[in-house]
Amino acid sequence: MWDFEEVTSEEIAQQRERYEPLTTSVRELIDATLRTEVDDDAVASARADVDAATAKLRFLQRDGALGIGLTPDGETVAWGNVAIGTRNPLAPPLVVEYDSPGRAYLDVELGAAYEGPPGHLHGGYGALVLDHLLGAVASYNNPDTAAATGTISFRYHRLTRLGQLHAEAEIQSTDGRKIIVVGHIADAEGVTVTAEGLFITLRQ
Amino acid sequence: MWDFEEVTSEEIAQQRERYEPLTTSVRELIDATLRTEVDDDAVASARADVDAATAKLRFLQRDGALGIGLTPDGETVAWGNVAIGTRNPLAPPLVVEYDSPGRAYLDVELGAAYEGPPGHLHGGYGALVLDHLLGAVASYNNPDTAAATGTISFRYHRLTRLGQLHAEAEIQSTDGRKIIVVGHIADAEGVTVTAEGLFITLRQ
Repeated sequence: MWDFEEVTSEEIAQQRERYEPLTTSVRELIDATLRTEVDDDAVASARADVDAATAKLRFLQRDGALGIGLTPDGETVAWGNVAIGTRNPLAPPLVVEYDSPGRAYLDVELGAAYEGPPGHLHGGYGALVLDHLLGAVASYNNPDTAAATGTISFRYHRLTRLGQLHAEAEIQSTDGRKIIVVGHIADAEGVTVTAEGLFITLRQ
Repeated sequence: MWDFEEVTSEEIAQQRERYEPLTTSVRELIDATLRTEVDDDAVASARADVDAATAKLRFLQRDGALGIGLTPDGETVAWGNVAIGTRNPLAPPLVVEYDSPGRAYLDVELGAAYEGPPGHLHGGYGALVLDHLLGAVASYNNPDTAAATGTISFRYHRLTRLGQLHAEAEIQSTDGRKIIVVGHIADAEGVTVTAEGLFITLRQ
């Protein structure tokens, strides 16, 4: 179903060493761009630096999206993924940790760049985080397959404060190719959004 | 309920002129960072430019998120919003267009930086786009109020191709403080994700 690109573990390590520090720097720049209050001249000077960097990077570039790499050992790497991609400055990135094959969590700091209501997380970004985490749980339990989201629903109990957040998900039930996963996201004061997803196992 | 910051239309215009071109440049840099294939030396040089820009911008900066500005005329500006913020490099930004008070749409190009499955939009990002659009429709119909998401659900019919996308939403029914909004997102081949949300009107 999905097209993977063949890569080796050595190539992954080399790419990581070459490009991830740049991505980290661009994430810092995103936050600085958003929160800066410097004057016209300083903005113009910073912008010239940014455009110079872009020109250097565009000198040789891939055509289109980065896709997912797959090693002979079955390791995958989703460089450009908007949620977890370690080469994607848009990704926080999320890092999913597994307690067991059917249960996972993540901890992430989401600051000024993830705002919706003043001082709070955009509700849609909470949905993105939970969609990713629930999908990761549904897929992990099936090493030879991937799970696609069929339906997913979210209940917003209250607004989520920007800052350090924690999310959890676990498989509630499995019926043939259907997997139901539930989860939540929480800020320092407790659970703010709950989610339930129905995922469908697809054979690779 | 929400805290707004008082601003004037003149201040909004001035901020826009000063900061939006920088934000546009950083969006270009994000795409270039993701897709570049240049060598170690070129990456190091570009990274030095990025870090220099960050230092200039951090010289004077706001503490925390940007919140939402409100003019005496009732115009609002959500500079830092992760979906629509024109000062937020993470935002595409989405631009919501209203056909009528109860119906809106948006067109947006989402490229390599919004990937989930290879070559396709991250399902969670589709949820973010629809959450924002449905919420905008629910809120617009109530000029003196804001609408908070109560529950929202998504059905994924097939994967959404990266590229030019179109989304629509409209109010299906209103019952007291409850507003039900439905919508969908479509790629060039048609509808890929449908959504239904229940929003609750909050008095300002």
